[in-house]
Formats: sequence, structure tokens, C-alpha cells
Amino acid sequence: MTHTLVASATKEIIIGFDQPFCVIGERINPTGRKKLAAEMQAGDFSTVTADVLAQVAAGATMLDVNAGVTAVDPNETEPPLMRQTLELVQSLTDLPISIDSSVPAALAAGLEVCKGRPLVNSVTGEEDRLEIILPLIKKYNVPVVAISNDENGISEDPDVRFEVAKKIVEHAADYGIPAHDIVVDPLVMPIGAMGTAGLQVFTLVRRLREELKVNTTCGASNVSFGLPHRHGINAAFLPMAIAAGMTSAIMNPVRPAEMEAVHAANVLMGNDQDCTNWIRTYRDRVAAPAGAPAAANAVAPSSGGRRRGGRAARRAS
Amino acid sequence: MTHTLVASATKEIIIGFDQPFCVIGERINPTGRKKLAAEMQAGDFSTVTADVLAQVAAGATMLDVNAGVTAVDPNETEPPLMRQTLELVQSLTDLPISIDSSVPAALAAGLEVCKGRPLVNSVTGEEDRLEIILPLIKKYNVPVVAISNDENGISEDPDVRFEVAKKIVEHAADYGIPAHDIVVDPLVMPIGAMGTAGLQVFTLVRRLREELKVNTTCGASNVSFGLPHRHGINAAFLPMAIAAGMTSAIMNPVRPAEMEAVHAANVLMGNDQDCTNWIRTYRDRVAAPAGAPAAANAVAPSSGGRRRGGRAARRAS
Repeated sequence: MTHTLVASATKEIIIGFDQPFCVIGERINPTGRKKLAAEMQAGDFSTVTADVLAQVAAGATMLDVNAGVTAVDPNETEPPLMRQTLELVQSLTDLPISIDSSVPAALAAGLEVCKGRPLVNSVTGEEDRLEIILPLIKKYNVPVVAISNDENGISEDPDVRFEVAKKIVEHAADYGIPAHDIVVDPLVMPIGAMGTAGLQVFTLVRRLREELKVNTTCGASNVSFGLPHRHGINAAFLPMAIAAGMTSAIMNPVRPAEMEAVHAANVLMGNDQDCTNWIRTYRDRVAAPAGAPAAANAVAPSSGGRRRGGRAARRAS
Repeated sequence: MTHTLVASATKEIIIGFDQPFCVIGERINPTGRKKLAAEMQAGDFSTVTADVLAQVAAGATMLDVNAGVTAVDPNETEPPLMRQTLELVQSLTDLPISIDSSVPAALAAGLEVCKGRPLVNSVTGEEDRLEIILPLIKKYNVPVVAISNDENGISEDPDVRFEVAKKIVEHAADYGIPAHDIVVDPLVMPIGAMGTAGLQVFTLVRRLREELKVNTTCGASNVSFGLPHRHGINAAFLPMAIAAGMTSAIMNPVRPAEMEAVHAANVLMGNDQDCTNWIRTYRDRVAAPAGAPAAANAVAPSSGGRRRGGRAARRAS
């Protein structure tokens, strides 16, 4: 059984086929959020703070942290900002962290200040990336997200994406990094642009699980890009991907439709023992009458009831 | 590719892996609905009429019709009532029909009055049932739902349920009934009572599809029996079962959470060409703000945009 251990200073999480789905909160990311980028550059972390607390309250399993505020001179600006952001986030929550950057120096800076065992997001199949990132992964003994593209870009052929993932796993093995510390992102295409995008991912996730024995992740909301009522598509995609073997996703935990789908999928995969978390979260939910739109009782999702390894098992969340 | 053809007098539906999921509306069924049973026995079909119209408006693909109003003397009461109910239903809608009874004489009566090519619901693996029902299926050249239990009841072991399904398919072949006219119900257990119920069904559906080449169905809401906020569980179960290869379900189409999940799963399986039905149904849906409960704009689901075979392709729904 493939287990990827991720940890903060005080809390351990296992990502695995026999575990509740790992929800990696995506909100702390200034990419495409101009106002947040400007705030962070100006040293104002009020939105970051609010996003940390909201994602924790919504039941995120871990938090992704990205400090990419500018495309200008990121090698200068991003490492110190990553360090500063991570120190703040770690002071606000004990959830494990995913250090997210395309700038290797920012990943290195993040690894210096991150306690526990963070996830590094990410490495691709590009040779120069592999040669810079994998030694960092080995040095800090941490897991890494492997994205299935390389020098040739993102292939529309899922077999090519599988081969890129395989190449990364093999390169990592050369560095002594085990497959259970590679979390592969098979890349989810927008279903509105490519009708086979769903079937591709379900097939790829199954192959990655059965042939490479790796955990998997994805940017879940990509699948609904360009479509109306995206949350409805996302909320079906997540259970389908989970049934195929997907074990984590980088997603917005503050969206109730998606989180409800994840909680239900945990029940249906047999990873919510005695439905404890489901019952705790939804016992007071009143059903909408037949014919009415989906139920509208706000219920704060509970992050309790998850089975966690190690010290976490003794901590109330 | 396995195709099960079902038809009314004027509309054909294909159940198949490459088709939109077949939603069999379950509402016209007095089992457990005392008031409806009393009405039907008294010759009052107002609730039946309302249930037909509501299910058609909600986008059902076909309608299940059950006339089991009493456990007392069903062989006397059920055949004429089935006939009467079917004649009414056929006057109200052109959706194909599933004739639902455990009384062989009621199935025979239904087959006499049903136009087109109805689905017969159901036969089990019990020898005496097979010997009565299969000749009817052969005589009328119609498809049949095969339920995976036999003289020994419902096995908790999915391998036994698979063997029962296989036995039914083999018996049917002896009568000259092809596998594509058998729609297997692998039987869904309540997940609250059996934590492996979800995984069992997903594995069984995949085996039934790959090894027996049959379409599948189930009573979808069974899975959430006894749990709070059942629609949330059902709405995740359906996409997961569809991803595993399930091609139809007997369910309540008037429930928006479940229907939205089915529409989204059709998109993600590549069975909603250019997302036409999704866009038509949900283009005016306004997303709930992050942190709010699931969106609450009532939108009448569209049953248009489905790809249908034969004459249906020329009919607006």
C-alpha cells in the first residue's frame, strides 16, 4: 500500500488509497489574483491570514502556499516572500504545507523554514528541473508533486503523459527517492475543450496507481474551465477521480459542493470509518423537498473524524 | 459495444457505455406509499399523473411502473391494475417504460398493453422465476433487469452475486436471449451498514461490463439508507458508479442533486457531445459565493440534447 507521509511540526497526514482524500487548499496563491499579489508585495498579509483560517475551518487536509507575486525578477522577490509567508502560515495553523513555486530558489527557501515534512509542488519531466529539484527533495527527505509535462510541453496523448511520469519516478529512484514520495499530477484538461479529458484522467490515475504505485493529485477545477455552473462539474469529477484511485487534489475547500462530494466519496470508498465524519458534518442538514434546488442549510464542514497516523490521532482538530 | 434498445410507440432509447446515463424514474410505485396504494386501488390516478409529469419535466429517460398495491392476493389485483396504470402512463408521455412487478401475471399483463419495447423489471436467479419470466422475455423480444440474488437470498459476497448474474445470462442464452438484452442489477447494500458496499459495486459493475458485456442498473438510493443528508451520498455514488461503467439507475429524477450529478457525469464520460445538454441546463445558474451553501437557483433540468437513436433523433423532447 502506497503511503506518502506529510507533516507539520505537530500533525502528520498520510496520503494513500486507504485514507480519506487529501484536500490541498489552493487559496494562498497570488497567481491571477492581482489584489492579493499587490498586498503581499506591500507586506500586507491580511488576505493570506483570512484564507488560511477559512480553509482550515472548511476542513482542508493541508495548505498549498505560493508566493509568486510577479513575473519580473522572481528569483529575487519570491524566495524571501515565500519564507515570510510560510512563517506566517505556520503560526496560524498546524496543517501540513505544500510549498508551491516554479522558482527553485523559492522552493529551497521554503524548505529552510518549513517544519515537519512539507510537500514540494512541483517538479516536471524537464531535465534541467529534475537535476535542480530532485537533489533538494533528497536533501530534505520530503515528497514532491511530479507534473506530467516535459521539454515538449503538455501532451494531449495520455500515454505520453504516463511515460513522462514514469521517467520522473525512475529519475527520482536514481537519487534514492522512493515512488511513495512522488505524487503524480497527470494533468487535467478542460472537458469543454476536449471531450475525452475525463476518461483520460480516470484511465491515467488507474495506471499510475497500478503500474507505478504512486499517489496522485491534480488541479481539480481545471476540468470545468469555460463551462457554466463549474461547481457541478467539479463535484462529479472529484468522486469519479477518487473512484479511479486519485488520492489528493489541489482545490478550493471553501466551496461546499466540492467538499460535500469529497466527504461522500470518502464514505463510499470505505475511508470514513462508520461514516463518523459524514454523520458529524451533515446530521443536522435538512433535505430540500423534491423538486426544489439542492439543500441550502449552511453547515460548517468538520475536519474531525478523519483517520490520521501518528501524533495526529491524539489531537482534536 | 453493448447496446440495449428500449422504446415506446414513438421514442427509442439506447442504454449503453457510450450513451448518456439512463435515468429510470422510480416514482410510480405504491410500495411503501400507503396513500398512493389506496388511491390506485380506489381508481384515483391523480398522484400517478402528477408523478408522470414531474418525472418527465425533470428529465427522466424512461419511467418505471409498479402497481403492487397489496400483498393480499396480488395475482388477482395486480395484473388489471398494471394494465390500467400502463395505459394511463402511455397516454401521458412518450418515454419508454419499465414494467415493474414481482408477480409474473402482472408482467405478462403489462407486456400485453405496453407499446414499443419496454424493459421488464425483473427476473432473479431463482430457478422457478427464470422458468416463468425468460419465456415471456423471449416471446415479446424485450430486455429484462436481472437481479443478482437467488434461492439463497442476497449474498454479501460480491463474487457470489457475480456468479448469480452469470447464471442468469447463461440461462437467457439458452432461450436465445442475447446478453445485450440483460441489464444486471448487482444489488447495492447500504454503506452505513457495510463499509465495503461502494467498493463492491464499483468492482462488480466493472466485471459485469468487461466479462459479461452487460449493461447494469441499481436502486441508487439504497446506498445511503439510514444516513443523514442522503442526497449528498447519492450524488457522489452515481458519478462513481458511472465511472465504473454503470449505465442506468432506478432513481428519483425529481431530486436536483442526483440529476445534476448525472448530467455532470455524462459530460465527464464524454457522453454529452460538446457539453450541449450541460450548457443548456445550467447556463443561467449563478454560482453560490465561496463559503455559502450549494447554489440555490432553481433551473428546470433539460432532457434535450441527449443523443438518441432512430426516430427519437428527429423528435424534440
